Amino acid sequence: MTPEEFRRYGRQVVDFIADYQERIESYPVLSRALPGEVLAGLPEHPPEEGEGFEAVLADMERVVMPGITHWQHPNFYAYFPANASGPAILGELLSAGLGVQGMLWATSPACTELETRVMDWLAELLDLPARFRSDGPGGGVIQDSASGAALVAILAAMHRADGGASGRGGVTGRRTLYVSSQTHSSLEKAARMTGIGAANVRVVDVDPGTLAMDPAHLDALLTEDAAAGALPVLVCATVGTTSTTAIDPVRAIGEVCRRHGVWLHVDAAYAGVAAVCPEFRWINDGLAEHADSYSTNPHKWLLTNFDCNAMWVADREALLGALSILPEYLRNRASASGDVLDYRDWQIPLGRRFRALKLWSVIRWYGAEGLREHVRTGVRLAQDLAAEVAADPGFELLEPHPFGLVCFRPLWDDLDGDAADTETLRLMERLNASGELYLTHTKVSGRVLLRMAIGAPATTGDHVRGAWKLIRAEAAAAGPASG
Amino acid sequence: MTPEEFRRYGRQVVDFIADYQERIESYPVLSRALPGEVLAGLPEHPPEEGEGFEAVLADMERVVMPGITHWQHPNFYAYFPANASGPAILGELLSAGLGVQGMLWATSPACTELETRVMDWLAELLDLPARFRSDGPGGGVIQDSASGAALVAILAAMHRADGGASGRGGVTGRRTLYVSSQTHSSLEKAARMTGIGAANVRVVDVDPGTLAMDPAHLDALLTEDAAAGALPVLVCATVGTTSTTAIDPVRAIGEVCRRHGVWLHVDAAYAGVAAVCPEFRWINDGLAEHADSYSTNPHKWLLTNFDCNAMWVADREALLGALSILPEYLRNRASASGDVLDYRDWQIPLGRRFRALKLWSVIRWYGAEGLREHVRTGVRLAQDLAAEVAADPGFELLEPHPFGLVCFRPLWDDLDGDAADTETLRLMERLNASGELYLTHTKVSGRVLLRMAIGAPATTGDHVRGAWKLIRAEAAAAGPASG
Repeated sequence: MTPEEFRRYGRQVVDFIADYQERIESYPVLSRALPGEVLAGLPEHPPEEGEGFEAVLADMERVVMPGITHWQHPNFYAYFPANASGPAILGELLSAGLGVQGMLWATSPACTELETRVMDWLAELLDLPARFRSDGPGGGVIQDSASGAALVAILAAMHRADGGASGRGGVTGRRTLYVSSQTHSSLEKAARMTGIGAANVRVVDVDPGTLAMDPAHLDALLTEDAAAGALPVLVCATVGTTSTTAIDPVRAIGEVCRRHGVWLHVDAAYAGVAAVCPEFRWINDGLAEHADSYSTNPHKWLLTNFDCNAMWVADREALLGALSILPEYLRNRASASGDVLDYRDWQIPLGRRFRALKLWSVIRWYGAEGLREHVRTGVRLAQDLAAEVAADPGFELLEPHPFGLVCFRPLWDDLDGDAADTETLRLMERLNASGELYLTHTKVSGRVLLRMAIGAPATTGDHVRGAWKLIRAEAAAAGPASG
Repeated sequence: MTPEEFRRYGRQVVDFIADYQERIESYPVLSRALPGEVLAGLPEHPPEEGEGFEAVLADMERVVMPGITHWQHPNFYAYFPANASGPAILGELLSAGLGVQGMLWATSPACTELETRVMDWLAELLDLPARFRSDGPGGGVIQDSASGAALVAILAAMHRADGGASGRGGVTGRRTLYVSSQTHSSLEKAARMTGIGAANVRVVDVDPGTLAMDPAHLDALLTEDAAAGALPVLVCATVGTTSTTAIDPVRAIGEVCRRHGVWLHVDAAYAGVAAVCPEFRWINDGLAEHADSYSTNPHKWLLTNFDCNAMWVADREALLGALSILPEYLRNRASASGDVLDYRDWQIPLGRRFRALKLWSVIRWYGAEGLREHVRTGVRLAQDLAAEVAADPGFELLEPHPFGLVCFRPLWDDLDGDAADTETLRLMERLNASGELYLTHTKVSGRVLLRMAIGAPATTGDHVRGAWKLIRAEAAAAGPASG
């Protein structure tokens, strides 16, 4: 494709996206495609001769769009938001256009140094501890996801715990991780991937009311395991769990970790970015004293499209010890000088895209004020919704709901237990099938709850009120107490 | 950013990239930025108020571009190519613009099914074995990198070897991997990350002439290790090594693997895509009978910008056994039906971008014919260069050089051994500092060789001839035999 052709087709794609943004509400939020339908719409064999890009764009409309679940739709309330904003999309485009691969400082110094700067900016915006900044022994890096960050944290923690023995000779003996029933599933997956094993993931009790990890039980487990000869590797505390945005007591957990000499990883994948607002900085309590690693996802609620996880460590030595490898072809003067960072040693793969460009574009376009306004809007809409739910006798609201997620369930007349859960799931499927909105569910104390996560930039009070009206109407039609 | 603003700035960014493509030869290939220079050009603190996107683009010129090493420059001969073509960039833009997250089939059916189709297309284009196609027990998936693919392959292999015991209870006892001295460093890194340990990576001898793995030595090591009570997990054969594009004898290695019941992973990161041309399909020999997993990087030589690794498995059961986790909030009717694929279970992280769009755009824009022409051009230019080097008495050429990589070294008068190596590295640094080209080095049999990897879409015979002329002149100025 010549530069002139790129100009022409590039404009068409930009228009396609702008048009999409304008007409997004005309689509059903959840795709109605049946299994195999998109596949059947695509030729079985690749073309022998090249086609014009118009053909690709025509097939985007014909076959791809009907198979899209619209994460950017203002009525997408499922999972957590995955904000894709204009400046982030353009940052991604700049990254693709430059086509550089930043595995080493030398392979594009700007790719490394812009990332260093932007991660320091984000640490400042979130008021994270000074020891996470790049001018000391710690520092920040962009990972693909919170799963990747947790995996890297475990490897660094294991390196620190056993002096690198498992990296050299393999895992021997029992190594343990500490989570709660509310911790993200990526921790169990990481235990399976790192040779620690799922059975050595110790599940610490939670307070049945707040769903927060119990530091006393953590203390007991650590004591018990160490006495039994296990090597405790890492404790994962969560600020804003996936299920309900529950918050583990990081300070109290950190004190236990310090006493036992165990690495504390804080997973704030969803909620961490809320700290752009001073009124949410209480979520950082305990980080400065206790967190060895911390991660949050600008690709969820901070307007930077997937993938962009922000991870910091208080001391990068363990990370580098766990992940550095230097084959001959990567040797170079800059790396050998020790004056530069090579981010390949901070992550799982060798290669890396120039992802800092999108985070940089977002921070500059919105500014601190714009980021705060975005988070506050999501929280305000969620609190308004929660007030409506709380006021409705036909529904039960889960408390607390400090951020943009509201969990609730209809109170079904004459039904309880599993029968009520079945009815709640049926309601969810009907709502999602309507195309008007998309929400997901979770289980708390064995009961199914609907999760409504608010935080897309396009979502307004009208959208949320409309969604709530529909939920009430659909529930009423099925005959709940509020009918 | 409103859709109208996105239209305006989107055009500016498209023009920025098209202008970049037109003027790329005006830049020094290797960035001349000094450590800290880009960092110093960026404000220490994030902006309080938002800025216009013009400011971002102005800073791209002012501070980012001087820190870019130009991977798309026609005289970029370092590492391997990392082709970023127009259709791939636009595919990435479409992916960013839609902003969907394809962890589950249900979270955007098109994201999964287009990937399935495109991976089948690519398998057909490369004439890969039928058992890698999605209509049987195997299938293909896009990973972030060959490192990620190797890590996933090891986890699947370990799951098959021990029936999932290490995933459940952790690694116990000695598990072993088999590589050669020429295998990519990501295998050692994966051994450290999976609890196998670097010391349990067994290094199989290579033929000193071809640098290909010796199947007889592999057989001996496997026998010895099994007798000593180790559990052999995986053998990695390479088609086109990073250092010199050496080729392991996959069929003979596969026969050994089969006899010992060990998983064979074939890493064809760079060279695998050459099989789009029938004259290169000999590199697939043995895959149909023996390969359990295979990976190649369209993001290197097949015009699809980073990240896009293509990985196939012959049987997905072990992969799913190793990597599937199903928390409550991901349960959904489509997944439960068994009628769909959920690619989150094929990879390390949970989340995933819609990367199939760029591979789809590339295959459609170029067609099979265009892809073949691209590979053939790179190979032809490399073979022309090799003929020049071979004909020059002042240089020694490494044989063979079947693809786009040519390795050679100047024969320095009166210098040999380490002194000659030092002089060769100095020559390389002078050449790279000239800004005219960028190449890297490797070591073969303890001697430093220059690596010149040809394969950027913009590279022509004039570029390669100009580079060779410069290399000869610089070497002559330093006084080699050809002076």
